[in-house]
Amino acid sequence: MVSASATAPVARPIRLGMVGGGQGAFIAAVHRMAARLDGHYVLVAGALSSDPERARASAAELGLDPDRSYGSFEEMARAESARPDGIEAVSIVTPNHMHYPAAKAFLEAGIHVICDKPLTSSLEDAKALVETVRKSGRLFVLTHNYSGYPMIRQARQMVQEGVLGDIILAQAEYPQDWLSEPLEQSGNKQASWRTDPARSGVGGATGDIGTHAYQLITFVTGLHAESVAADLDRFVPGRQLDDNAHVMLRFAERNGRRAKGTIWVSQVAPGNENGLKLRVYGTKGGLEWVQADPNYLWYTPLGEPKRLITRGGAGANQAAASVTRIPSGHPEGYLEAFATLYTEAAGAIRALRDGGSLPENHLLPTVEDGLEGMRFIQACVTSSNKDAAWTRLDSL
Amino acid sequence: MVSASATAPVARPIRLGMVGGGQGAFIAAVHRMAARLDGHYVLVAGALSSDPERARASAAELGLDPDRSYGSFEEMARAESARPDGIEAVSIVTPNHMHYPAAKAFLEAGIHVICDKPLTSSLEDAKALVETVRKSGRLFVLTHNYSGYPMIRQARQMVQEGVLGDIILAQAEYPQDWLSEPLEQSGNKQASWRTDPARSGVGGATGDIGTHAYQLITFVTGLHAESVAADLDRFVPGRQLDDNAHVMLRFAERNGRRAKGTIWVSQVAPGNENGLKLRVYGTKGGLEWVQADPNYLWYTPLGEPKRLITRGGAGANQAAASVTRIPSGHPEGYLEAFATLYTEAAGAIRALRDGGSLPENHLLPTVEDGLEGMRFIQACVTSSNKDAAWTRLDSL
Amino acid sequence: MVSASATAPVARPIRLGMVGGGQGAFIAAVHRMAARLDGHYVLVAGALSSDPERARASAAELGLDPDRSYGSFEEMARAESARPDGIEAVSIVTPNHMHYPAAKAFLEAGIHVICDKPLTSSLEDAKALVETVRKSGRLFVLTHNYSGYPMIRQARQMVQEGVLGDIILAQAEYPQDWLSEPLEQSGNKQASWRTDPARSGVGGATGDIGTHAYQLITFVTGLHAESVAADLDRFVPGRQLDDNAHVMLRFAERNGRRAKGTIWVSQVAPGNENGLKLRVYGTKGGLEWVQADPNYLWYTPLGEPKRLITRGGAGANQAAASVTRIPSGHPEGYLEAFATLYTEAAGAIRALRDGGSLPENHLLPTVEDGLEGMRFIQACVTSSNKDAAWTRLDSL
Amino acid sequence: MVSASATAPVARPIRLGMVGGGQGAFIAAVHRMAARLDGHYVLVAGALSSDPERARASAAELGLDPDRSYGSFEEMARAESARPDGIEAVSIVTPNHMHYPAAKAFLEAGIHVICDKPLTSSLEDAKALVETVRKSGRLFVLTHNYSGYPMIRQARQMVQEGVLGDIILAQAEYPQDWLSEPLEQSGNKQASWRTDPARSGVGGATGDIGTHAYQLITFVTGLHAESVAADLDRFVPGRQLDDNAHVMLRFAERNGRRAKGTIWVSQVAPGNENGLKLRVYGTKGGLEWVQADPNYLWYTPLGEPKRLITRGGAGANQAAASVTRIPSGHPEGYLEAFATLYTEAAGAIRALRDGGSLPENHLLPTVEDGLEGMRFIQACVTSSNKDAAWTRLDSL
Repeated sequence: MVSASATAPVARPIRLGMVGGGQGAFIAAVHRMAARLDGHYVLVAGALSSDPERARASAAELGLDPDRSYGSFEEMARAESARPDGIEAVSIVTPNHMHYPAAKAFLEAGIHVICDKPLTSSLEDAKALVETVRKSGRLFVLTHNYSGYPMIRQARQMVQEGVLGDIILAQAEYPQDWLSEPLEQSGNKQASWRTDPARSGVGGATGDIGTHAYQLITFVTGLHAESVAADLDRFVPGRQLDDNAHVMLRFAERNGRRAKGTIWVSQVAPGNENGLKLRVYGTKGGLEWVQADPNYLWYTPLGEPKRLITRGGAGANQAAASVTRIPSGHPEGYLEAFATLYTEAAGAIRALRDGGSLPENHLLPTVEDGLEGMRFIQACVTSSNKDAAWTRLDSL
Repeated sequence: MVSASATAPVARPIRLGMVGGGQGAFIAAVHRMAARLDGHYVLVAGALSSDPERARASAAELGLDPDRSYGSFEEMARAESARPDGIEAVSIVTPNHMHYPAAKAFLEAGIHVICDKPLTSSLEDAKALVETVRKSGRLFVLTHNYSGYPMIRQARQMVQEGVLGDIILAQAEYPQDWLSEPLEQSGNKQASWRTDPARSGVGGATGDIGTHAYQLITFVTGLHAESVAADLDRFVPGRQLDDNAHVMLRFAERNGRRAKGTIWVSQVAPGNENGLKLRVYGTKGGLEWVQADPNYLWYTPLGEPKRLITRGGAGANQAAASVTRIPSGHPEGYLEAFATLYTEAAGAIRALRDGGSLPENHLLPTVEDGLEGMRFIQACVTSSNKDAAWTRLDSL
Repeated sequence: MVSASATAPVARPIRLGMVGGGQGAFIAAVHRMAARLDGHYVLVAGALSSDPERARASAAELGLDPDRSYGSFEEMARAESARPDGIEAVSIVTPNHMHYPAAKAFLEAGIHVICDKPLTSSLEDAKALVETVRKSGRLFVLTHNYSGYPMIRQARQMVQEGVLGDIILAQAEYPQDWLSEPLEQSGNKQASWRTDPARSGVGGATGDIGTHAYQLITFVTGLHAESVAADLDRFVPGRQLDDNAHVMLRFAERNGRRAKGTIWVSQVAPGNENGLKLRVYGTKGGLEWVQADPNYLWYTPLGEPKRLITRGGAGANQAAASVTRIPSGHPEGYLEAFATLYTEAAGAIRALRDGGSLPENHLLPTVEDGLEGMRFIQACVTSSNKDAAWTRLDSL
Repeated sequence: MVSASATAPVARPIRLGMVGGGQGAFIAAVHRMAARLDGHYVLVAGALSSDPERARASAAELGLDPDRSYGSFEEMARAESARPDGIEAVSIVTPNHMHYPAAKAFLEAGIHVICDKPLTSSLEDAKALVETVRKSGRLFVLTHNYSGYPMIRQARQMVQEGVLGDIILAQAEYPQDWLSEPLEQSGNKQASWRTDPARSGVGGATGDIGTHAYQLITFVTGLHAESVAADLDRFVPGRQLDDNAHVMLRFAERNGRRAKGTIWVSQVAPGNENGLKLRVYGTKGGLEWVQADPNYLWYTPLGEPKRLITRGGAGANQAAASVTRIPSGHPEGYLEAFATLYTEAAGAIRALRDGGSLPENHLLPTVEDGLEGMRFIQACVTSSNKDAAWTRLDSL
């Protein structure tokens, strides 16, 4: 019932660096906890802030050797790659516009990259980064962390095994309410960069959480959107990027069937904290999963009573069990799912370190997944600008 | 806490007739229970089936006087309007294509009409029926029964009072799974007429349940769709009408704001029985309601903990209390909500009988609401046929 | 899927009288709605209040012939039994202390009795009433209405079929909060008689809702308490009867096993409206049901995922289906369950009217069930007075 | 919103040892993950198994220096206390009967102890351990991990602030189903020692999970049981210790009121995984919390709608916020709550290391709490053996 991840060797932890993530950065703390949970990493270097004083203070707080607290990612990439005990991997947790240059610097210095989403702040950067990764031979992991949840892995395996029959519908929603008021106008740091096209890119909610919703659909169903019709709004006056999006999807055909889908993302829906929800329906059954209660997966076989599959419980399959740490009934959460990506990345890094190659059937989100996410953002924006006209992702 | 409806005088029940509703008809039995619950009606006549033998057997089963079991609605309208003790109102529970001619016959005979939804099987009939009703001076009630639920009344009042601020989003979904297989090809009566354009009209799921979803939005929010962009599917091979619809809505502006919405209806989503759900978000708070658990209303004020308002509980407002029959914690259901429409119709009929007029602020769904529903169906079909182009309801 | 009850003949409704139930009485209105829903009864006589003016006004409101509005139940029993069109059955909805004398009067007048719970206000009366019923040859139904819920019927059949294996645990709870403050001291009518030993008997919460909880356990499991150990409290200062009870149960052995149980009832647990809940565990599986959401039954087979059985859904068995009125997903509620008792009583009355006898396998709560409930109340009180000593029900 | 724990200095992690926890031990892996999550510890030594081969393999798997993998806890205590870089604290994760001797050895060697529950396998050992801890001046933490959940901290603060008024009822339940079959007879290691009096002590379910339930009640309400009346069962034939317990509690008076309570624990209730649930009712409101969904706390103020407080949401208080790692809506779970105890223990250890003393208002479960838990177990067993007679905890 308990996966290998909980007991895997921690003898030789991977040396990790971090770009971004100075004091006050929410997602950076998440990355650090995720890296620590299973004991596969040790954080030894950082370019934690573009503000030197803040960088220094943050490094001290994290117990970094002052010599390995850098003023810029460029300096860090150069210096660490020159050290015999330099970092083997780096976590990039900056605002979106820095993902590409930072990732490029480390990949070209031979360092593996674990990068927050969305991939970049522009489609052009995304395309370039795909090339950079391919040339580098290094590991690139995009932290679409929801795909680390055991019940999401369960769902994916069930779809692959045909339990649901042919998939006809896939729907995801990710409502929040934290931007219901114009926080970006009163100095909130998280709000400011996320609503700023220069740092976020063309997508607001679409980029920040829409890419998660989209990735979750593709991860579980294996379906890919051929085109989208989107209606984006900026409900808060003065906001520069969308804070609500209604999206209809047409997936590429599979087995002669064209499935359909919807995505709703919002940052202005009062009462919703991080209400990520996925529903998938096939000709023989359905699945439903909600992030706020992630240890449950509803499985609804056609013509039979609904079943509630629990992480670690009797109905859990191999894909779920292999990323489960504790017995059923004891809840795992967001950090555990996030840590699973880090742990699987550690496995991949060790495989590469030992001269091997990435396992073909690994489940880590890739740079190509990131590019697809960027096409999704751009397609939504383009469609919305054209009165919700269907827009092909591959046209962008 | 207990409304007048439960104790209202039953001394002079209204004489009711029924068109359609022979043995095996689900919705007819519902109408009869709804009419009985509060004691305001007595069923005395019927044209229960176009099959004379079935009509006779059904009438006997219901205890009707054989003389008042008619072979056709025309005959019934004629005969009953000539009797001194003739029916005062009639319930029309036939397939859609019969609504218009039957309603017309009774209205022109001076008999009030309670009619199942959708209004008619064509937009033309719907427009004609609006005129017929207006000329008749009789009551016409369309049984959009979900608007009879106490928590829906509660929601409506809360929106009107401005508790949610300006409404920006309204979303309804109504998934079912009973047509996941081609039941209409194996003689299922309910499935057959609902998937037959000649009897249902141009909408499948859109007409059967989409109109409920749409009416619920308009009832609660007071918003009306200016246009829709719809993607309709027939996922079951050979099916003639849509069994799944994704619809985006643009509501007419109100107070300088344009709210947006979505509707999802499906008859092919395994695990969904009658999953009607409504979500409304404003600038100051949200509401969420699910038909399967109708005694609860989630109210989510921005920046405060969610509150679960219960029918009859401490947070119930006047609108809810006035249609509540039993104490909080004891569940009311579908039949009670349906009965509320019948009881309110009885009040209206008595007011008209006594020479008065319909109360201005009554909440009964009208023929105009029915016409708006028919425009919604047609707009969805038209939009879907034009690759989901935005289609104005008032253009039809 | 829809039971006979919804379409059963209403041609010859049973003539019904009512004792108690003047204006403002909650449960009387419930009985009347329950009697009306399926069309098997017509209310024609009443002794609605001991206050003549109130009796008259209530009768008028209900449309009773003034000649059949009586000043006392004795007068009513006498007069109605003398009429050729006299009542065939009577509903007794008075405070507890009147149940016995009223029931006796009607039974001895040859009139069937439908009586609210608990059976009487004293164990002595209860024992006497059992004899009275047996001698009378008339039907006596105690309205333990929760046993009319389809999912409770489902549970009972599942236990009988051995789906759960041998039952080892049965737990019921019924918390409310409406007596958290001393309402009886400020004139609340419902609170006053329920907290008054002279009208309620020795049990407060134990009598009013504890008997429901106990009956539900016995109905579903077929187990009967051999003894109880109870700790009763009166948390509200000045209250005369228990407003909270913790009870442990030892059931009589069955198949060499002794199952155990608990009952918790409270009227002072804030946030609980009518939180009746039942849990049953056997060696092979468990069941869980909550009255507030009565259309669901959790079935938890050992070693398999939990299943959510829905009224009318794929997992519903014959016992559930036979008391189901509308399709799955449309909620039925409290009134429907209550009406099922009335409808089944109507079937029994017709069988007796036609010279037959009561079906052996009927599911109506009997006078003997009522006596067992009275023993349960007395055993709880006796045990609590003896420092929670185990007290046998058959010792009383 | 994010607590200090997530960003606290990790510069000087505490050197930790572990006793027990060789391969296959569930709870040991939990302790290690909990110790790692916030970065306050580094595991450097272990006496991981009494089987030398298993001890060695486990140590290697965890990356321990072979020199610091010991064959016994005595040897480890001796050797580590002699090293300048010896462990500062030890985690004891053995079966219960080893807790006392191991804790004694380390405390007397000047090493802080973090020990799994229940405190010991006998009341005598427990009393002795209290003395040992007091004499040692070292920190002793009992890992009643559920008290680390943010919503449990929230509940405790709410009770202390009087939000609920005077507490009248406290109820906990902790049902499981994993021992529904006699696993101990087929070699299951976890089941074997837990059902063995020699290793577990006199309590089965009572000891293993009953102490958690009891501690949770005392932690949140501040109430302490004066006496219990318990009915223990061994439903699985051949089992030596209780696998189900029904317990009634009388709490010591507070403010002139005597609150009552119940505890139900079971290991044989099919469908329950780790169904820990707490309900607390006062004169002004109630609280309800369920471990499986730990990020929610229901708050039910009397006479107002229920409120759902979420970890990190608008209603979260200081006590909750201070142990919260990630934003609301992203679920935290069991490991995070467990880690909070480790992190708070780290703070205490650092305070003691720096020559200070334990903060008076710390929330870590103490050896005295452990002794109270042992009295609870013994009182339940004694009471059950005396036909559920009320048994005072302070009589033992």
